Amino acid sequence: MNTEKKSSEKIYADAVTVLPGGVSRNTIFHKPFPHYVSGASGCMVTDIDGTQRIDFANNMASLIHGHAYPPIVEAVTEQLKKGTAYTLATEVEVRYAQHLTSRAPDFDKIRFVNSGTEAVMSMVKAARAFTGKSKIAKAEGSYNGTYDFVEVSQVSSPENWGPIDHPNRNPLAFGTPPGVLEDVVVYPFNDIENTLNLLDENADDLACVLIDPIPHRVGLFAATDAFVEAVYAWTRKHDTLLVFDEVITFRTTYGGAQQNYSVKPDLTALGKLIGGGFPVGAFAGRSDVMSVMDPNESPLRLPHSGTFSANPITMTAGYVAMQDFDQNAILDLNELTARAISQINEAIKLADVPMSISGLGSMFRLHPRRNAPESYREAFQFKEEKAVMTKILDHMFYKENIIMVNTGTCMFSTAIGQQEVDRLSQGLMNAFKANKAELNEVWDRYHEKHKKADPKG
Amino acid sequence: MNTEKKSSEKIYADAVTVLPGGVSRNTIFHKPFPHYVSGASGCMVTDIDGTQRIDFANNMASLIHGHAYPPIVEAVTEQLKKGTAYTLATEVEVRYAQHLTSRAPDFDKIRFVNSGTEAVMSMVKAARAFTGKSKIAKAEGSYNGTYDFVEVSQVSSPENWGPIDHPNRNPLAFGTPPGVLEDVVVYPFNDIENTLNLLDENADDLACVLIDPIPHRVGLFAATDAFVEAVYAWTRKHDTLLVFDEVITFRTTYGGAQQNYSVKPDLTALGKLIGGGFPVGAFAGRSDVMSVMDPNESPLRLPHSGTFSANPITMTAGYVAMQDFDQNAILDLNELTARAISQINEAIKLADVPMSISGLGSMFRLHPRRNAPESYREAFQFKEEKAVMTKILDHMFYKENIIMVNTGTCMFSTAIGQQEVDRLSQGLMNAFKANKAELNEVWDRYHEKHKKADPKG
Repeated sequence: MNTEKKSSEKIYADAVTVLPGGVSRNTIFHKPFPHYVSGASGCMVTDIDGTQRIDFANNMASLIHGHAYPPIVEAVTEQLKKGTAYTLATEVEVRYAQHLTSRAPDFDKIRFVNSGTEAVMSMVKAARAFTGKSKIAKAEGSYNGTYDFVEVSQVSSPENWGPIDHPNRNPLAFGTPPGVLEDVVVYPFNDIENTLNLLDENADDLACVLIDPIPHRVGLFAATDAFVEAVYAWTRKHDTLLVFDEVITFRTTYGGAQQNYSVKPDLTALGKLIGGGFPVGAFAGRSDVMSVMDPNESPLRLPHSGTFSANPITMTAGYVAMQDFDQNAILDLNELTARAISQINEAIKLADVPMSISGLGSMFRLHPRRNAPESYREAFQFKEEKAVMTKILDHMFYKENIIMVNTGTCMFSTAIGQQEVDRLSQGLMNAFKANKAELNEVWDRYHEKHKKADPKG
Repeated sequence: MNTEKKSSEKIYADAVTVLPGGVSRNTIFHKPFPHYVSGASGCMVTDIDGTQRIDFANNMASLIHGHAYPPIVEAVTEQLKKGTAYTLATEVEVRYAQHLTSRAPDFDKIRFVNSGTEAVMSMVKAARAFTGKSKIAKAEGSYNGTYDFVEVSQVSSPENWGPIDHPNRNPLAFGTPPGVLEDVVVYPFNDIENTLNLLDENADDLACVLIDPIPHRVGLFAATDAFVEAVYAWTRKHDTLLVFDEVITFRTTYGGAQQNYSVKPDLTALGKLIGGGFPVGAFAGRSDVMSVMDPNESPLRLPHSGTFSANPITMTAGYVAMQDFDQNAILDLNELTARAISQINEAIKLADVPMSISGLGSMFRLHPRRNAPESYREAFQFKEEKAVMTKILDHMFYKENIIMVNTGTCMFSTAIGQQEVDRLSQGLMNAFKANKAELNEVWDRYHEKHKKADPKG
């Protein structure tokens, strides 16, 4: 047992010699070492040391049916024998495009790419190509992939976030060109008055306003109807596109979170679950806007290609995954998730800890707060708060054998059942109790700290 | 037969209703309609209408062993049963990283991403994060993916390319922010004097100079030793990184095209073949530079993650592909390609047409020129030249059943043998003869047109 226990550690010792920090993705970085998977099935993941864990992260929301979903394994195994990519087209990309565009009334046309990052980047470029304008607006604190324009102010903190009516444009990476910052307007999510003022100040220059309707890193709460409608109305008056990032949120209803609003975006970025577990991204929307990429057009406003885009493996897996993620499957999954939230709220009460939950559909996020936050600045976690959240997540991982996203988030799959939900809520109760003193301590200092940070500007 | 012949056309009729221009990638767009694949094996691709073609494109150079390579099919089929992606690490990403870094002495560390576009974008961001500078230099005419900074002047033409000593910074897409253009220095490939002068003019601001050592769209000829050495020497004096785009060219030798030079880049972008037929990108290089992404570092200069990066399917397929693409396999493939070039040169002579070939390793490109071009501006094809090249490629596709890249390029796979090379050279001879009059005509007007375009500035 002891020898076995060392194998993830041993692989990591090799990993640090060839990968920066020993990892390929910073989201899976874990101290003292990350764990290496030997196999997974349904909602269970087994690491190389033999420990089996329930998976509530599902590769950052990308596995809607859990691991090794038999219909996907079968279909992909068949496709594999026929090849994985060609310099020609395949029928499955057309059938899958028909399926996805049928799910949302505003998806006239769709284009596939290889990641959520590529989806948002291409969508922004399409908006610029259509409008001929350069600037974009995005929410403070929102993660929209690694294209530097949409990374602006992704991790703004009290030291640098500036006044709420003019949030600072903070670069994420060192060396971000100043020109990038100048072309991005950072708005406070769900804050209608300040957002409209900011848009007004850039009225002639905005190609698009980018909204993630339930932004995970902002705090995983929904854009209000009033906010979306106000921004929509503004964009209609200023020849600006309204574009949604639904890479994560498309799971919430059959046609994405946009189904919940009376107004629809012009373009929508997709990713994660629509690849059936394989690398994917896509963006869909208005026919006239999407035609900027149509090679029949002259001039071609947005030349756009990609070696692996719409490869038949991703298309096959995604098509199977989404066909099986139908209205009933979504209802069931959302109901199960609602039950989980209710059970965890019960656990919070019983453990008597200052914790709260935000979320929608098949996902939710825990906050070390008495009440769920309603803005990025409220949701912002100071170092001590992050530390106690890490303790809770470590407790879940090591003691309860439950995997969650490193922000304290769960992204459900259809492979999860009531039994796993019971283990999750019981596990969290244990974690809350084990960290009760510290949770109370950070909560006691919350108001003081946040008052100092002046979240309302 | 006639009914069958219509099936690609029929699928395309559906495709245009849901995909812009009916395609997912503009590189596979083909008039009157693209062809849909039913299956492929080795070097043969069969379309849905039953026509079998020899594949010399290999999904834009990404299938080094051709289609459905049995060792890859076997390994991926096994991995599929264990899952395709986790929110944890896998051993195969470490073993594959060890393999790739062992192939080139300057690959200290590596990070995987999902496409060549992501590889070059991340590499540029890493160079900026390391140096704290904003600008990059890239070659006129060079394709380096769809990140807008590296798209600048990708398709410059006589109407807009400007003087050779100061090539214009032309946006590729409509709506490209002016700030993007300001942060890109466009240099004339292999032109030492003008390039060094341009670098000097931006001496304090350059994060990196990006070189594709055998740039396909520039004309598929190699960077000269003197050029690479001169740029390298310049970067050493100015705290600027030398970065290579070897997404395509890594196939040319065991350690990439960089193996041919006495000096080595600081970072290198990889893609295509290293995914074994699955979506992939990577960048590798100096340990101190790569540490900008190390999550142990504080501050973290380049926060960087990706949902599907280093997924175990791509890692498994890529690792198998590259282990089997060893020194001997590369020698054999390059020899076969050299024989193909020699046979085609013979065909050019026999057909007595003004055609030429450039290339290196396992790839080459045809040019409607008496002598192979040595600069982007020489290689640039006017409308009439493009039209005759399209006729040649259509002849190859429809009459000879041979697939080439839409630029008149062949990217070999190890599945190709002497028999296919014979069919290629014979097919090209037929195509040359069928288009001889037109080839002579465009050649007669070449000097006049190019003199007018003033390629030497």
